[in-house]
Amino acid sequence: MDVARHYSENIKRMKSSEIRELLAVSQKPGVISFGGGLPNPQAFPVHHIRTILEDVMEEEPHLAFQYGTTKGRQHLRQAIADMVAKEGIRATAEDILITVGSQQALDLIGRVFINPGDTVFLGLPTYLGGINVFRAYGANMVGVPVDDDGMDVDLLEEKIVAAEEQGKPGKLIYSVPTFQNPAGVEMSPERRRRIVELAEEHNLVLLEDDPYGKLRFEGETLKPLKAHAEHVVYMATFSKVLAPGFRLAYVIAPDAVLKKMELAKQTVDLCTPMLTQSVALRFISEGHMEQHIPFIIDMYRRKRSIMLEALEEYFPPGCTWTCPRGGMFLWATLPDSIDTRDMFPAALEEKVAYVHGRAFYVNGGGQHSMRLNFSFPSDEDITEGIERLGRTIKKQL
Amino acid sequence: MDVARHYSENIKRMKSSEIRELLAVSQKPGVISFGGGLPNPQAFPVHHIRTILEDVMEEEPHLAFQYGTTKGRQHLRQAIADMVAKEGIRATAEDILITVGSQQALDLIGRVFINPGDTVFLGLPTYLGGINVFRAYGANMVGVPVDDDGMDVDLLEEKIVAAEEQGKPGKLIYSVPTFQNPAGVEMSPERRRRIVELAEEHNLVLLEDDPYGKLRFEGETLKPLKAHAEHVVYMATFSKVLAPGFRLAYVIAPDAVLKKMELAKQTVDLCTPMLTQSVALRFISEGHMEQHIPFIIDMYRRKRSIMLEALEEYFPPGCTWTCPRGGMFLWATLPDSIDTRDMFPAALEEKVAYVHGRAFYVNGGGQHSMRLNFSFPSDEDITEGIERLGRTIKKQL
Repeated sequence: MDVARHYSENIKRMKSSEIRELLAVSQKPGVISFGGGLPNPQAFPVHHIRTILEDVMEEEPHLAFQYGTTKGRQHLRQAIADMVAKEGIRATAEDILITVGSQQALDLIGRVFINPGDTVFLGLPTYLGGINVFRAYGANMVGVPVDDDGMDVDLLEEKIVAAEEQGKPGKLIYSVPTFQNPAGVEMSPERRRRIVELAEEHNLVLLEDDPYGKLRFEGETLKPLKAHAEHVVYMATFSKVLAPGFRLAYVIAPDAVLKKMELAKQTVDLCTPMLTQSVALRFISEGHMEQHIPFIIDMYRRKRSIMLEALEEYFPPGCTWTCPRGGMFLWATLPDSIDTRDMFPAALEEKVAYVHGRAFYVNGGGQHSMRLNFSFPSDEDITEGIERLGRTIKKQL
Repeated sequence: MDVARHYSENIKRMKSSEIRELLAVSQKPGVISFGGGLPNPQAFPVHHIRTILEDVMEEEPHLAFQYGTTKGRQHLRQAIADMVAKEGIRATAEDILITVGSQQALDLIGRVFINPGDTVFLGLPTYLGGINVFRAYGANMVGVPVDDDGMDVDLLEEKIVAAEEQGKPGKLIYSVPTFQNPAGVEMSPERRRRIVELAEEHNLVLLEDDPYGKLRFEGETLKPLKAHAEHVVYMATFSKVLAPGFRLAYVIAPDAVLKKMELAKQTVDLCTPMLTQSVALRFISEGHMEQHIPFIIDMYRRKRSIMLEALEEYFPPGCTWTCPRGGMFLWATLPDSIDTRDMFPAALEEKVAYVHGRAFYVNGGGQHSMRLNFSFPSDEDITEGIERLGRTIKKQL
């Protein structure tokens, strides 16, 4: 049977991730990988979850085992509303949708808004999973440079206006303002205010993806975009503060948008798994979340600092890198003579891995850069791995 | 901000389920509902799962908490391969994809194969969640009548040929051959063989949705379509034999199709939650599944029989119904003078609820029919509810 002739236009647009193949290669024994984007297993609150699971099985197994509503468990949505209130976001349980990870939230946004050819503005470099969703829906992705203060909003405005003048006004701005993957930078307060205004002025959906906002190591807390304006579609996740294997995230959006996302989710998976919703609810409401996040922050801050020290020591002159005040990643840029994709086999020879910068661009940028993850490797491996990487780079010069 | 002008063609095709609203209404205290499609909470193996969760937390918490592969945990896929071998399906772990419920499997199929306007053949009445997915992708749904022996394959062939002659050959056949939702009927062995041949002869994707096949009360076991031919795309779920709240299902498909579904799933949610995968794996491999299914079967067989007896006693002459040999539903058809949608408020007055037949059609059929669920209500409520429903019907005549 010739099944290939039946493939949809949707699936033809998707391509297998080169990064996944690189990451598979870097699983080899002895290789220190800065390539993945995994939380550290030592950051998983195993002890608390074990107790919570016992309680769930004692007190509400039938709730945890049965179908739930598409929107998600009401008590969990209420607990999230209370939690984000401390970050300046005003929301009720009704404004919240529980999703199977942030990736599902992104996909639902794509499904609700994007027709093939629609223009989406996004800071570059940006989250690969976001790029993949917008590509799958056939979006025309317009990149805007990201610097140490986040997305350049003046350039964003130029591109928005240019698109309008071409008679193809944009639909959506995808923003990861706080400790973004891959660069680890955060958007300045001024730019935060401005991007929210721009979206309003030009009638664009502003999507704020905030997986790392709770993992701040230092510096003044900056309000999420959603705290600036109600029209922002906000998404955050339990993956970095509880457990990614639970696949739990949430969207906070204006009523009309949330209703459409809920409608789309009905055909996508009916509802988010209930057992893990029960666990997350208790983890928040019993106060564990508030106690646990500082523990993760201490661990990741230390690892970040170890990586920065190692970079100073082992990377040759001409290399630069970001100094993240939170999150799980930093972004290093090498001299122009080095293409990080071409260098990858040499790095593997030295038994160290990373993700090359091109993966986070949609327009061929990032050739000389790389994403380095510091949350997953052990402290010792960070130092040793950066030394190996420094050696690899020096050999290329 | 005028967000509505940004909605995609995708979301415009989706409509809020009238059924959900009816089901919400039937949550009123005192109403006996045959409307939902829920497994009975007493069929949840709470005791075993509690022990399994303790073991998981003791032995592999970091696996259950961390990201997994998109395809699903290898050991679980192997356990499923071993399990379905007993049903005559030859598959290796490599042929299997774990999904967030069957609904996600359906959605991935839609994403991989359906462009707007593509023709999908489906037996009517059929599963509402299937209809919703195909509608969301803009499929042209061509209905084929289902009788006590399942989909009428001769009529199916006529419609396939007609579509080809109109220069719009179909793409996919959606089939729920065993104890289908809503009618509870099963496809005869002859038709099973023929539908598999038809798909092959006309180069159509044959999708077999099998949520209820393991819940056989009586009669000879019939091989799934997938056991007849490797080209069949097969899907089944843990929702009816373990816990729907876990949202765990699986697809067994030819390599090329499975790879495309996996690719689509990468952008949809990265991976299926891991904690519940760990639980399902142990539930199978420790032998609980084999012991537990007969327990569910005994319960549902009894409830089915109680409902059949009550129908005999309380429904007026001129009513007919299917006699399911398995599953969770039966299908009752009333005299032509009664429209089951119009009758619904009168039934609610009598404090009983069902789903009217139109919901399971795409062409206006089913006006005089209703789906009755017997898995969820208590034994006493089944008798009492059917008596109420009989009274409602008699008042309409």
